[in-house]
Amino acid sequence: MPTPAIRVTSSAAKRASSLLRALQAHPPSCPCHSNPSHHYQSPSLLKSPRRSFATPLDHTKQKEYAFEMAASSIRFGPGCTKEVGMDFKNMGANRVCLVTDSNVSKLDAMKHVVESLSREGVGFTVFDKVRVEPKDSSIREAIDFAKPYQPDAFLAVGGGSVIDTAKLMNLYTTFPDAEFLDFVNAPLGKGLPITKPLKPLVAVPTTAGTGSETTGTAIFDLVSKKAKTGIAHRNLKPTLGICDPLNTRTMPSAVHASSGLDVLCHSLESWTAIPYHERTPRPQNPMNRPAYQGANPISDIFSLKALRSTVEFLPRAVKDPEDFEAQSEMLLAATLAGVGFGNAGVHLCHAMSYPISGQNPGYKHKGYVIDSPIIPHGVSVAVTSPAVFRFTGASNPERHLAAAEVFGKDVSNAKKESAGEILSEVLAEFLVNLGDQPRGLKALGFGSEHIDDLVEGTLPQKRVLMLAPNLSLEENEEREQLRGLFEEAMNY
Amino acid sequence: MPTPAIRVTSSAAKRASSLLRALQAHPPSCPCHSNPSHHYQSPSLLKSPRRSFATPLDHTKQKEYAFEMAASSIRFGPGCTKEVGMDFKNMGANRVCLVTDSNVSKLDAMKHVVESLSREGVGFTVFDKVRVEPKDSSIREAIDFAKPYQPDAFLAVGGGSVIDTAKLMNLYTTFPDAEFLDFVNAPLGKGLPITKPLKPLVAVPTTAGTGSETTGTAIFDLVSKKAKTGIAHRNLKPTLGICDPLNTRTMPSAVHASSGLDVLCHSLESWTAIPYHERTPRPQNPMNRPAYQGANPISDIFSLKALRSTVEFLPRAVKDPEDFEAQSEMLLAATLAGVGFGNAGVHLCHAMSYPISGQNPGYKHKGYVIDSPIIPHGVSVAVTSPAVFRFTGASNPERHLAAAEVFGKDVSNAKKESAGEILSEVLAEFLVNLGDQPRGLKALGFGSEHIDDLVEGTLPQKRVLMLAPNLSLEENEEREQLRGLFEEAMNY
Repeated sequence: MPTPAIRVTSSAAKRASSLLRALQAHPPSCPCHSNPSHHYQSPSLLKSPRRSFATPLDHTKQKEYAFEMAASSIRFGPGCTKEVGMDFKNMGANRVCLVTDSNVSKLDAMKHVVESLSREGVGFTVFDKVRVEPKDSSIREAIDFAKPYQPDAFLAVGGGSVIDTAKLMNLYTTFPDAEFLDFVNAPLGKGLPITKPLKPLVAVPTTAGTGSETTGTAIFDLVSKKAKTGIAHRNLKPTLGICDPLNTRTMPSAVHASSGLDVLCHSLESWTAIPYHERTPRPQNPMNRPAYQGANPISDIFSLKALRSTVEFLPRAVKDPEDFEAQSEMLLAATLAGVGFGNAGVHLCHAMSYPISGQNPGYKHKGYVIDSPIIPHGVSVAVTSPAVFRFTGASNPERHLAAAEVFGKDVSNAKKESAGEILSEVLAEFLVNLGDQPRGLKALGFGSEHIDDLVEGTLPQKRVLMLAPNLSLEENEEREQLRGLFEEAMNY
Repeated sequence: MPTPAIRVTSSAAKRASSLLRALQAHPPSCPCHSNPSHHYQSPSLLKSPRRSFATPLDHTKQKEYAFEMAASSIRFGPGCTKEVGMDFKNMGANRVCLVTDSNVSKLDAMKHVVESLSREGVGFTVFDKVRVEPKDSSIREAIDFAKPYQPDAFLAVGGGSVIDTAKLMNLYTTFPDAEFLDFVNAPLGKGLPITKPLKPLVAVPTTAGTGSETTGTAIFDLVSKKAKTGIAHRNLKPTLGICDPLNTRTMPSAVHASSGLDVLCHSLESWTAIPYHERTPRPQNPMNRPAYQGANPISDIFSLKALRSTVEFLPRAVKDPEDFEAQSEMLLAATLAGVGFGNAGVHLCHAMSYPISGQNPGYKHKGYVIDSPIIPHGVSVAVTSPAVFRFTGASNPERHLAAAEVFGKDVSNAKKESAGEILSEVLAEFLVNLGDQPRGLKALGFGSEHIDDLVEGTLPQKRVLMLAPNLSLEENEEREQLRGLFEEAMNY
């Protein structure tokens, strides 16, 4: 099926008219009239009614005209973890900071990594205290460990928490004098760009979910602000992701399911995010072009392929622990989705998932053997997905129908107006068939009394909310829309 | 349409039985019996009859078990050439070697690049003597220019010849004491791996064809050996490709056509190349894993997408010089195909094209305004494609039928045995409809008297021939097959 062309969405139309209103209120002035091509717009934009503006827009209102694609190198193959010692030897590294957590440190993946480094005579030290779902405090602790060792390279072995922590150890040892908030996403942090290359980082994922081995994103809890946030910049991405399907065989079935649901939402959200050329402002320096830039023709390829694989292989990987083909395909899908959303972004499911996990009223997900309550990340993103895609459907019916078709739905006679509803239904069916998934926020213990807090916990996620189709730019309206979404997400 | 899974090809079966014969003649011995997992094979390989081998294979006979994907970052957008000065300023470069040729130096692309570097105060020097279809002598001249300047970065503005020359200037200024043949592909050169990172190289393509802005490959004539060869290693790839559709508007229609045919063959050849896990030998160090590693699940995504775009947009780009949408899509397709073949490889069309262009009996392609005879690269690869894909069809009928379907052919009732013939026919039809294409080698002036030389000129292209499905490993048989292919390619 050919990829549908990116279309101007109805949300875009709404944003354009709000822009028009803003322009009427604040007539633009611009210092660079002498250079007309400074205001060059892409051919597709030139066809739009906007070209009738006689006066150019100011930079903060100008839409994007380019996209940029960057991804870590990826090596994929069963057993290829054992090559990692040679990789570090090849790059001349001899002070490798090996980052992991206390669970992964007992797995074969770590054993093979340590053997490989030792066999090649590469010097290394182990930090195995990564906190699952890292906080700023746990990351500071990791950075404090790394600084005196003065690593010449990093190696992360674990899930998203480990890889994200290693990225930030790399960042803050390269910029030892930076304040922690300097690089943290605005508005919670200063959102400064990363102005120079970091040290080599090789990431060996042991889960098939976050795709962190290919992205320039690291997520953590900023405790003082009670918010999940992160740092996102292309320079943060690993040099190489070593994707070895032998390393994900240790995942219990429940972890296959929830990490696979993260992949599902990465692919669906990036596929339906607003297109890059609808994003404002156009950056004045390419360094400031965000990795979460909106859907674009290259991220689309990855997102749609990852969606196809997830729909085909996740149910098999969850149901049969011996189905190594399905597990292997899910690891590849996680990485492909990582390239997709890492260069496009995610939106509502992810924005809403952070308060859902953080404000857990006491739910303990089946199959997770820990003492405290937990809503796994993948569960918290997927639980709102039927509500989210019903809401976003009108923004781009073609894309929502194309996604529904991937699930096997015959959409040949589907009406555009029903696109959101159709995708919502097939998603709900997929989640139910997967098994052991909460059928909405109510099943997690949330009630209408929690909605205010959930909404307030979502609003600061500007970096992803700005990519949400159909969402208002006006805060009161946005708040009402989010409230409606949480209400809708109570049951599916 | 979901990507068909990679299947064991009949050529693979042939290779396996020749391997069996070799093993019977030379019983394997292996120093590492004490570590059984050293001989780990991928699950799909374990399912094959080969697992009945009681004795392990020696390394040179072992098949590959992993693939590696690497690509330059890509920025795409009309007008984004003007950002390049900021890119160099951001990376702190101040001695940029700007590489181009005498034609491109007069185009707007160069004007914008020079303005941008100057505006940002980035120091640079211009080398504008790149030879179209570079020879080793022209490349040595370019390297001799660069060495005394001691660049801290390179910027290539032009087509494949310019970008390839800049890659080699970068390589040999980073390894100033290396012999020219050290890195040249074996067997003509020593084929040494590039053991350290090169300086930053930004590539700004002005044609939509080679995809060189994303690949680690540089091609040139090695005059003393009368052969087209090159250097291929991931470390050779540019840091960033700036794909600005405004820069390809200057291409005449005939250049759109021939460079687009290069894209067509990049995508079709990489899509049908032998799968990576059928390639031998398995590298003992990941540094030696070739970029031309065979088809793999990630290259497949790019190759098929590029094929779809080319079939849709190339005819429009050729027929209407004002169709900027089609031109823009072809630039993107060229880059996507570059990522595909740059991480998989090409095979017969490319291997055979080098002697076809090099031994030109006097053909002058319509629309090329030069005095001397010329068979443009894209024309020389496409001219054999109907014969090539008829020959390779049996190796993987599913993939050949999937490709035919992209051209709009209904393959729902097609027989597997006809897959090659079907793809061959739709290709011939596509070339005829494109217009001004020679209908076979005869139309280029070749006759049966030239076939011996054409075959001998093809045989040294081991690096790509090893990826050709259905081609014999036995040299006499291979020679006969190539002879047959050139005969078949006389007319379509």
